[in-house]
Amino acid sequence: MNESVLMSELSWNEYQRRIIDEQQPVLLPVGAIEQHGPHLPLATDLLVVQAIAEHTAKKVGGIVAPPLCYGYKSQCRSGGGNHFCGTTSLDADTLIKNIVDLAREFGRHGARKLVMVDVHFENDMFVIEASDLAIRELKREGIDDFKILKPNMAAITNLENIAQFYPEGFTSMSLEHAGKLETSVMLYLHPELVDIEKFPQDELAQIPPYDTFPPATEHVPPSGVLCPVSGACREMGKIVFDDLVDGWVDAINVVFP
Amino acid sequence: MNESVLMSELSWNEYQRRIIDEQQPVLLPVGAIEQHGPHLPLATDLLVVQAIAEHTAKKVGGIVAPPLCYGYKSQCRSGGGNHFCGTTSLDADTLIKNIVDLAREFGRHGARKLVMVDVHFENDMFVIEASDLAIRELKREGIDDFKILKPNMAAITNLENIAQFYPEGFTSMSLEHAGKLETSVMLYLHPELVDIEKFPQDELAQIPPYDTFPPATEHVPPSGVLCPVSGACREMGKIVFDDLVDGWVDAINVVFP
Amino acid sequence: MNESVLMSELSWNEYQRRIIDEQQPVLLPVGAIEQHGPHLPLATDLLVVQAIAEHTAKKVGGIVAPPLCYGYKSQCRSGGGNHFCGTTSLDADTLIKNIVDLAREFGRHGARKLVMVDVHFENDMFVIEASDLAIRELKREGIDDFKILKPNMAAITNLENIAQFYPEGFTSMSLEHAGKLETSVMLYLHPELVDIEKFPQDELAQIPPYDTFPPATEHVPPSGVLCPVSGACREMGKIVFDDLVDGWVDAINVVFP
Amino acid sequence: MNESVLMSELSWNEYQRRIIDEQQPVLLPVGAIEQHGPHLPLATDLLVVQAIAEHTAKKVGGIVAPPLCYGYKSQCRSGGGNHFCGTTSLDADTLIKNIVDLAREFGRHGARKLVMVDVHFENDMFVIEASDLAIRELKREGIDDFKILKPNMAAITNLENIAQFYPEGFTSMSLEHAGKLETSVMLYLHPELVDIEKFPQDELAQIPPYDTFPPATEHVPPSGVLCPVSGACREMGKIVFDDLVDGWVDAINVVFP
Amino acid sequence: MNESVLMSELSWNEYQRRIIDEQQPVLLPVGAIEQHGPHLPLATDLLVVQAIAEHTAKKVGGIVAPPLCYGYKSQCRSGGGNHFCGTTSLDADTLIKNIVDLAREFGRHGARKLVMVDVHFENDMFVIEASDLAIRELKREGIDDFKILKPNMAAITNLENIAQFYPEGFTSMSLEHAGKLETSVMLYLHPELVDIEKFPQDELAQIPPYDTFPPATEHVPPSGVLCPVSGACREMGKIVFDDLVDGWVDAINVVFP
Amino acid sequence: MNESVLMSELSWNEYQRRIIDEQQPVLLPVGAIEQHGPHLPLATDLLVVQAIAEHTAKKVGGIVAPPLCYGYKSQCRSGGGNHFCGTTSLDADTLIKNIVDLAREFGRHGARKLVMVDVHFENDMFVIEASDLAIRELKREGIDDFKILKPNMAAITNLENIAQFYPEGFTSMSLEHAGKLETSVMLYLHPELVDIEKFPQDELAQIPPYDTFPPATEHVPPSGVLCPVSGACREMGKIVFDDLVDGWVDAINVVFP
Repeated sequence: MNESVLMSELSWNEYQRRIIDEQQPVLLPVGAIEQHGPHLPLATDLLVVQAIAEHTAKKVGGIVAPPLCYGYKSQCRSGGGNHFCGTTSLDADTLIKNIVDLAREFGRHGARKLVMVDVHFENDMFVIEASDLAIRELKREGIDDFKILKPNMAAITNLENIAQFYPEGFTSMSLEHAGKLETSVMLYLHPELVDIEKFPQDELAQIPPYDTFPPATEHVPPSGVLCPVSGACREMGKIVFDDLVDGWVDAINVVFP
Repeated sequence: MNESVLMSELSWNEYQRRIIDEQQPVLLPVGAIEQHGPHLPLATDLLVVQAIAEHTAKKVGGIVAPPLCYGYKSQCRSGGGNHFCGTTSLDADTLIKNIVDLAREFGRHGARKLVMVDVHFENDMFVIEASDLAIRELKREGIDDFKILKPNMAAITNLENIAQFYPEGFTSMSLEHAGKLETSVMLYLHPELVDIEKFPQDELAQIPPYDTFPPATEHVPPSGVLCPVSGACREMGKIVFDDLVDGWVDAINVVFP
Repeated sequence: MNESVLMSELSWNEYQRRIIDEQQPVLLPVGAIEQHGPHLPLATDLLVVQAIAEHTAKKVGGIVAPPLCYGYKSQCRSGGGNHFCGTTSLDADTLIKNIVDLAREFGRHGARKLVMVDVHFENDMFVIEASDLAIRELKREGIDDFKILKPNMAAITNLENIAQFYPEGFTSMSLEHAGKLETSVMLYLHPELVDIEKFPQDELAQIPPYDTFPPATEHVPPSGVLCPVSGACREMGKIVFDDLVDGWVDAINVVFP
Repeated sequence: MNESVLMSELSWNEYQRRIIDEQQPVLLPVGAIEQHGPHLPLATDLLVVQAIAEHTAKKVGGIVAPPLCYGYKSQCRSGGGNHFCGTTSLDADTLIKNIVDLAREFGRHGARKLVMVDVHFENDMFVIEASDLAIRELKREGIDDFKILKPNMAAITNLENIAQFYPEGFTSMSLEHAGKLETSVMLYLHPELVDIEKFPQDELAQIPPYDTFPPATEHVPPSGVLCPVSGACREMGKIVFDDLVDGWVDAINVVFP
Repeated sequence: MNESVLMSELSWNEYQRRIIDEQQPVLLPVGAIEQHGPHLPLATDLLVVQAIAEHTAKKVGGIVAPPLCYGYKSQCRSGGGNHFCGTTSLDADTLIKNIVDLAREFGRHGARKLVMVDVHFENDMFVIEASDLAIRELKREGIDDFKILKPNMAAITNLENIAQFYPEGFTSMSLEHAGKLETSVMLYLHPELVDIEKFPQDELAQIPPYDTFPPATEHVPPSGVLCPVSGACREMGKIVFDDLVDGWVDAINVVFP
Repeated sequence: MNESVLMSELSWNEYQRRIIDEQQPVLLPVGAIEQHGPHLPLATDLLVVQAIAEHTAKKVGGIVAPPLCYGYKSQCRSGGGNHFCGTTSLDADTLIKNIVDLAREFGRHGARKLVMVDVHFENDMFVIEASDLAIRELKREGIDDFKILKPNMAAITNLENIAQFYPEGFTSMSLEHAGKLETSVMLYLHPELVDIEKFPQDELAQIPPYDTFPPATEHVPPSGVLCPVSGACREMGKIVFDDLVDGWVDAINVVFP
């Protein structure tokens, strides 16, 4: 048990020792349950953030808190939209309150370093609002040295490192949902959960430059996949994933030296 | 992937098939991250509800939704209290909103059968409020045949089945926190996470017939364990756990025949 | 007016004198408006907490604040359920906010001792959440010596003292709703509000070990009474009531010496 | 019990009979706990709305629901201000939620006629917001014939009827807090709670034409009384009170014929 | 740019200079979008508060923050009611939160003087609640010298100054909605937005001494105008408007000397 | 008045005619009050959305509702951060509630077409959440044909059209805050509010690939400008602005044909 980075598996005494004596950062994975086409599991984003958190925690000496499994509503232009069966999302208010409550608790424990782990684009601004409110709350509790770090997946992802896999050029990061890149990461992390026989044959989705509510679902491929999957491979997945972990590790090393 | 009961591991197409075509019930584990003494992990309650949900889902043909890992604040008389380091809880409002949001989503998917899986006493009334509000919400969405089932751990637990392990009589169900019974269940489910060498030697805690806020922590053993652990064993854990699964299975069979 | 324990009847000057000069505790009755069968009035729980508060205040030198008349939703297994006509309940959020606001006001007045008076099982956890939030709020106002005491009716009730009235043994405390025990208390406190001719003849209700939402009302006797009433008497009511008052008095004497 | 107009004293069966069979209106007293000078009790407003409700219910055949004892924050220009010890108020949100919840419950019972009974100026707009939200809520529950009536104390009060008691002319209705008029009503309703020996000798308060937050308490007489008390008498109190009851009765007869 | 009183038109550096170096008060116009008959624009209240704020700011040396354009729901007896097409209102909670957030931000900037500018009767109590909550919030942020001033339009309006325009006496301030007085002010401030040919011919509305929810719209003239318009003139409008500006200026000079 | 596209300037009758008879769309500008360097006014974003809305409304035959002047909190990587004096923002919850309330009102009026006008990146996801909640709310009101359109500024902006002004290539859209592009737009729309003498000389800001809370302000240029301003010109501003208006017009023509 002693060696685990998972808060879930630690006794409170061991957790306390690491937080107080070692001043380890707490990594909080914020996931999403969202359709990822017929070939990837609903928890893809959750599995990815959990993996990033675990790998990062091992490298920096941190603790991975149990994840928030559910995230904010999928949008047509980035996740296919929240009208899909299986996509299971929280209202903004709920997601925000979860994070604020947890930050308050970690602060009470004596933690002063919280690292958000999030790759679901739609979560971003709500994680930000929650972080802002959490700092406000904690100050009112008399804790004014609590710091939250939120590495930015989009800013970390280094497309140059995978240029070799896109000989005709990278098409669209914003439409990279359940496509070649994400499928590659899952082939690397959880190949047993990727159903290669169900790869969809969709072209790059043509999403108009506006959103409508209720969503105009006709712009979204029925598969839920916004860009081609073909060419996905474990090798590329490893590169992307390692880059992400490096991004988290680097940010932690700078912000929590 | 096809055989998994975990919603996490299903594609949205497979999830939809089970919900719509097979009308499978969705089981939602509501956990807690709470100190369980020096010998049990912080996620004990989460691990137990996850196990109940998985075993039950396999028996009845159901789907286990990703868990709500965090629960309501630990109370001195039932969980040692929320002042312990490591105990990480949500405000009532947050816990309620999580469940309402998820029920709304499951209803949108086409699910009509939701089973709450909860063994953390402090969650009980908030799961109830959330269930009441969820039904109210869903009716307003035009869904009036959605039903939520909440088996009651306390009512299910059959102390007669484990009388053999308590030759001097069962002491106190309400103080059974991180004690002989719960430790036994963990020895059965996750022996690798039980640290036998750290069993505390505490006697049955003497909790006064009142609560105070802030909590009067002097009534709680410093270990966080409210009753003796000695005598915990895998055999008894299996009996208790099987009883719980049977309770969930029976309730589902009656309510969702 | 001077001798009254009722805040309602005091001028602000006299109230201030008692709070500031005498540092008297404030007792806040939290009631419920809930069906109690055809023979007891809807306000039974409210009348009982009001009586406990008044008797206790006289014994310890305290002030009874005006009651919160309405409580949390009745549950099938403890109060017959919230589907009855006449049962009139608040959402959890509303009940919690009431208590937090009042605690904040009492703190502003200079009071530092607040005693919750509650016998409605369904209120319990929401009074607890409110108490926790109130302490958090008050600390942010700079008041960190405010203390809330919540005696626990279930832990106080001493069944041994009334064993003589249950020659075949006490059946079920949890189903004791509008039954022999509660009716006895009302015969003692408010005999004019008990309609002896309308005593129902229900047997002990058989509530299954699970809850459903919407509630499965078929398990609840149409009268709303969960256990036999026959044998209710003023004498037993006095014993039970005196025990409760003693429980509140004892707790106050220990916590607010 | 049968003859009582108090919901508190009715069994649920009798309440149901009156609501469903007789379609009686429900009167909900909304009170306030607010300083009323050294000579009147803190619950003055609560006692007055309770009396209006009971008298009105007897005249029109209605049911008086248990009161909301606490109201919105006292303002300097109308109630002396919320800085007084003893004045105990709710946040707007809390007051609103109470009323919305209760309206929803009365609607569920089958009631369609709800009468608000309120004389505390500061409650007014929040009762209005609550009434608006309650109608919105009830429509979503499928109940679209629920109606709320809120007689307006200020519009009802007929100063001509008491002109005889103000030979030099009525000074200021808006500053009539704990003064001659209100004291008269209490002398009529609850003479035992009026302390004649403590009548303050304050002149009419000079409140500037603006409010400040935090409140500028120097404009408020230390007694909390905003206008002269001398001359208060039971006879005038009866006239004022009867006018109020007539106002409520007339409004009910028009709106719920 | 330098001379503008509009925060909108200032650079942050210039705004900072005025707030920090000159300690100028911030004036926040709280408007309403509400029918004002066929002859006045929907934004009448917004235009009036904006004008009061600008004129006042120039006289006292203050900054006008961008307005909250929308206000609380129009009531039958004061604004014709919220059932009119075009009347566009916020829930109380929303209006309150806007003001609290802005006060918190002004406090963070270093401002300590906030002046509410409001003439829409229905906004009043919500501006008051917001001001109370804002002070509470700011204290928790450690800012305890922030002060909010709310001049009271009703208390400022000096009917004597316009007696000449009402030879038969002023009829009713409370029904002065879109009538002679308000139309006069608009003729003075924005004559191009007053459609003289559409002046309604309504008599003084007869509003009963009670409100109902849903509103009893039959008491409200279909035009939405509650009192006669005829006789409205620019001259009277100037007197009224100047009185209002004087009221705001005087209050600021007293409270923020 | 008849020709105005501003709801503010319309009588309710004229507004009603356009909404009901002509079924015009309502455009709601959502602004922001945010530092834009020493050379641009705090209301830059508000002024731009107001201009887009007015130009678009004239082209498509629409109504511009009064703006929500304040937006969501500025972030370091897109707006310099919310720590600047003068940047005045709402909590997410407040911004969301404003939009939901207004959509509900427009729906009540009979409008079925709502167009959000927003260029402040930080508002985006909250406008989306509000739109989603508004549709949910409106459905519960029985209005299921209400549609919200939210053109996406980032997706509309056509960098090719301004390539001539960036001979060395466009540096960074995400850091385009108060820089050459935005300054150009303001030079076109409101040259009198641009202080050319105060153009900052900052280079492109180097924002690390992570956010911290509280914000790491050392990465943000003290001027608040994230990219070079030099080269800003009216001509380019016109091109960008016209593109934006075209984008809104095109989207409206497609979605509300």
